Amino acid sequence: MGSLPLDASSSVRPLDPEAFAGDSHAVVEFLAEYYRDVDKFPVRAADLEPGRLRKLLPNSAPEHGEPLEEVLEDVRRDILPGLTHWQSPSFFAYFPMNASAAGFAGEMLSVGLNVVPFLWAASPAAAELETVVVDWMGKLLGLPSRLLFSGGGGGVLQGSTCEAVVCTLTAARDRALAKLGHEAILKLVVYASDQTHATFQKGARIVGIPPSNFRVIPTSAASGYGLPAGAVRVAVERDAAAGFVPLYLCATVGTTGLGAVDPVRELGEVARRHGMWLHVDAAYAGSAAVCPEFREYLQDGAELADSVSMNPHKWFLTNNDCCCLWVASTAALTSALSTDPEYLKNVGTTTTGNKPAAIDYKDWQISLSRRFRAIKLWVVLRRYGAAGLRAHIRRHVTAAKWFERAVAADERFEVVVPRKFSLVCFRLRPSRLAGNDAMNDAVNRELLTAVNGTGRAFMTHFVVDGKFVIRLAIGGAMTDMQHVMDVWDLLQGKADEVLQRYQL
Amino acid sequence: MGSLPLDASSSVRPLDPEAFAGDSHAVVEFLAEYYRDVDKFPVRAADLEPGRLRKLLPNSAPEHGEPLEEVLEDVRRDILPGLTHWQSPSFFAYFPMNASAAGFAGEMLSVGLNVVPFLWAASPAAAELETVVVDWMGKLLGLPSRLLFSGGGGGVLQGSTCEAVVCTLTAARDRALAKLGHEAILKLVVYASDQTHATFQKGARIVGIPPSNFRVIPTSAASGYGLPAGAVRVAVERDAAAGFVPLYLCATVGTTGLGAVDPVRELGEVARRHGMWLHVDAAYAGSAAVCPEFREYLQDGAELADSVSMNPHKWFLTNNDCCCLWVASTAALTSALSTDPEYLKNVGTTTTGNKPAAIDYKDWQISLSRRFRAIKLWVVLRRYGAAGLRAHIRRHVTAAKWFERAVAADERFEVVVPRKFSLVCFRLRPSRLAGNDAMNDAVNRELLTAVNGTGRAFMTHFVVDGKFVIRLAIGGAMTDMQHVMDVWDLLQGKADEVLQRYQL
Repeated sequence: MGSLPLDASSSVRPLDPEAFAGDSHAVVEFLAEYYRDVDKFPVRAADLEPGRLRKLLPNSAPEHGEPLEEVLEDVRRDILPGLTHWQSPSFFAYFPMNASAAGFAGEMLSVGLNVVPFLWAASPAAAELETVVVDWMGKLLGLPSRLLFSGGGGGVLQGSTCEAVVCTLTAARDRALAKLGHEAILKLVVYASDQTHATFQKGARIVGIPPSNFRVIPTSAASGYGLPAGAVRVAVERDAAAGFVPLYLCATVGTTGLGAVDPVRELGEVARRHGMWLHVDAAYAGSAAVCPEFREYLQDGAELADSVSMNPHKWFLTNNDCCCLWVASTAALTSALSTDPEYLKNVGTTTTGNKPAAIDYKDWQISLSRRFRAIKLWVVLRRYGAAGLRAHIRRHVTAAKWFERAVAADERFEVVVPRKFSLVCFRLRPSRLAGNDAMNDAVNRELLTAVNGTGRAFMTHFVVDGKFVIRLAIGGAMTDMQHVMDVWDLLQGKADEVLQRYQL
Repeated sequence: MGSLPLDASSSVRPLDPEAFAGDSHAVVEFLAEYYRDVDKFPVRAADLEPGRLRKLLPNSAPEHGEPLEEVLEDVRRDILPGLTHWQSPSFFAYFPMNASAAGFAGEMLSVGLNVVPFLWAASPAAAELETVVVDWMGKLLGLPSRLLFSGGGGGVLQGSTCEAVVCTLTAARDRALAKLGHEAILKLVVYASDQTHATFQKGARIVGIPPSNFRVIPTSAASGYGLPAGAVRVAVERDAAAGFVPLYLCATVGTTGLGAVDPVRELGEVARRHGMWLHVDAAYAGSAAVCPEFREYLQDGAELADSVSMNPHKWFLTNNDCCCLWVASTAALTSALSTDPEYLKNVGTTTTGNKPAAIDYKDWQISLSRRFRAIKLWVVLRRYGAAGLRAHIRRHVTAAKWFERAVAADERFEVVVPRKFSLVCFRLRPSRLAGNDAMNDAVNRELLTAVNGTGRAFMTHFVVDGKFVIRLAIGGAMTDMQHVMDVWDLLQGKADEVLQRYQL
């Protein structure tokens, strides 16, 4: 069929196996060095100005390719000093975002194979591994079988809780609108607590729920900042009486601010009674359910949930991103999110008959394209096993207990809310500031700024009942007891300085 | 401060640098071997049954960790044979999903550093690199400066076009509802062609646009299956007259089915006149704009666009996932998608004053958490340079031209729509079947099944004007002229067999 045309570009061989291996080995060494040295960086460089990196880099991409060594040198010189080092063992901010050797290996397989399991046919083993691994996870965490494929439900790996919330809100909304007509969208109401993650409100907004139909139920210290089911019931009944349609209730196991736990069973009963979708967001604390001693929070009432989500990418040694979403009714999800254009019609979806159904995961999420996340989570579960993952969780809980006791034993401090997992919320409360809330907040802000300013640790804050609270979220893959002891030493030293400055 | 408590789990060291390096090097070798051998696998195993992998794997996660070698051996034995091999040089289905040594290296850096640039402060250099790299990309593709940070707009890296569509639809919707009130959501209308990707309809549904307000404008061979601006204008005027609110128009440069190009400038003028948001989806063909000879499709009229998206993860050597989204009004996007809970308040966002603003990318996307995709795209641009990327694109376009000519020169076949990029749409059209459309379709279905059944290539189909069409989407990182010549030989041989069977 004719000769090869002249091809000036035959030198482009972007997947040459030897060149690939050479470059990739160099990056592995670069990262190993980074992990060896990560505790030498300021956890968060305190003196950065927005725009610093932009000034260092050229205004446009290079015309010609550059050697990997130069790229890595630029990462070392220009980028690393400007990062906040989430893998530092002294990173205690937000929630942990675990990296691990197994998570990395799994992600490398995902990225290297680079298959796209949006349809079963588009990569059968990738889609099926996902069904296997979400069942494995559900069993490990003690979820009821109705949320697992093996029990008639099913799961999917998404990128974030936000995605999971948007998908389940869409499913709940369309289930309601199918009965009521689309104009009822103006009447749909969703419920959460004042501790629920902001992503829920954003998700509700994205799917078109009127912002004025977003009910925020107050919590208090009396319920440990959990969402009181009685208050939800009152709100729901009031809305129903006013002609609104209660749609969706979001319960959280391990809130972002304080690690609070909502009473899933009681909330589930309210949801059932009013035909609402109950979603349980266990983004952070869901990982702890791998340990029997933490399982009840998620398990008690989970059989009333329409959906449950948790993030192995937080505290479960699975590099970002990976969010497990389980649903009791897979049809509710897929009937809201399915599309069936001609260019995606394929054997798997059209000839299953009474054989096991092929899963087309495009109908379980927002996007069509997706990554082979299942292999990452599968490698993590294989490499560490349930026992290793329990040990990982317990190591941090042990450290958090120790820290909580240390804080409680220091009369200058107080623990603001009893710790449940590995998040400790505390503040300075010098006795001479009793009654002076503004000054007390100022002292705590100053303490946090002073500690973070050293670069030797990074923590973030929260405000509850008007009080400024410091959060120590323990969970880094390299974080162990010594780092927690060190940060307590640091906190005590800076507390001395701040209190002295305020003459307290 | 007391002694270390007993910690039975001190053996869990998931980021030990030496163990990390050892495992990661092993995975690199595994993948290099995979790339060496990928053309020995059937591109798509034709005889797989749904449920095969599930039967091979245990029902639950192991209690104890297992060696990496065992895991990799299971990947080799159980998983690889069940994959569709998107990196095979003979994968011509859907659109390409490029892997490359640089894309992999960049993703390794992203995954290894595992920082989360949702806020500027949460990893300043990561957020800033993203602003730099989206400007680099925009300049490379010839986008107008109003879509770049350097010209008052800005960009973000998301996971998929679907996400970009949901975000921009939300922005457009909320801009309209801010004026009209939320009840106007029932009146909002969106427009696309019958060739627009199904993800647009799904996105519109997710954000709460009534499905009955989704207008599908027919295309035809006369316009090369591009969306006729005149027909859009008629539809928009009819809707406006009927009290609807024209909201959003999606134009595509390089449709999924046929690679058609909508007339962006003319559509932009209609959109402007009626106050609609114009989004340009260049998911696949946007990559070609790196070459001046393909730039006009995207460039001509792009200054009228409110947003443009394209996927470096398709044909731009950037491993999945990576979608560039540029917007002219960053405020429209962020005012629809921003949240500002207490636990995310931080220095960068509150003290910029008249310094360069810090970008909090959480307000540019659906999710809060996100990956450091910028470093991946940056490594690709650095390693290959504009010249290398042009050569990559031209190599495939050259091969597509050759294939198109070969098809046209064979009287048994026809090219269904003139090729613009690297997608060739063709079919068997034996003269004796003239007028017998059903039989002609059957012959083509059979040809596609026969070719895919060999495992030596994988293509997918499309249906246009009722005709079954075979798509050859050229673009794999390892695909070169020889593979295209081979698939043409294969097609000719199978065509002989099929036509003989039908006695044609």
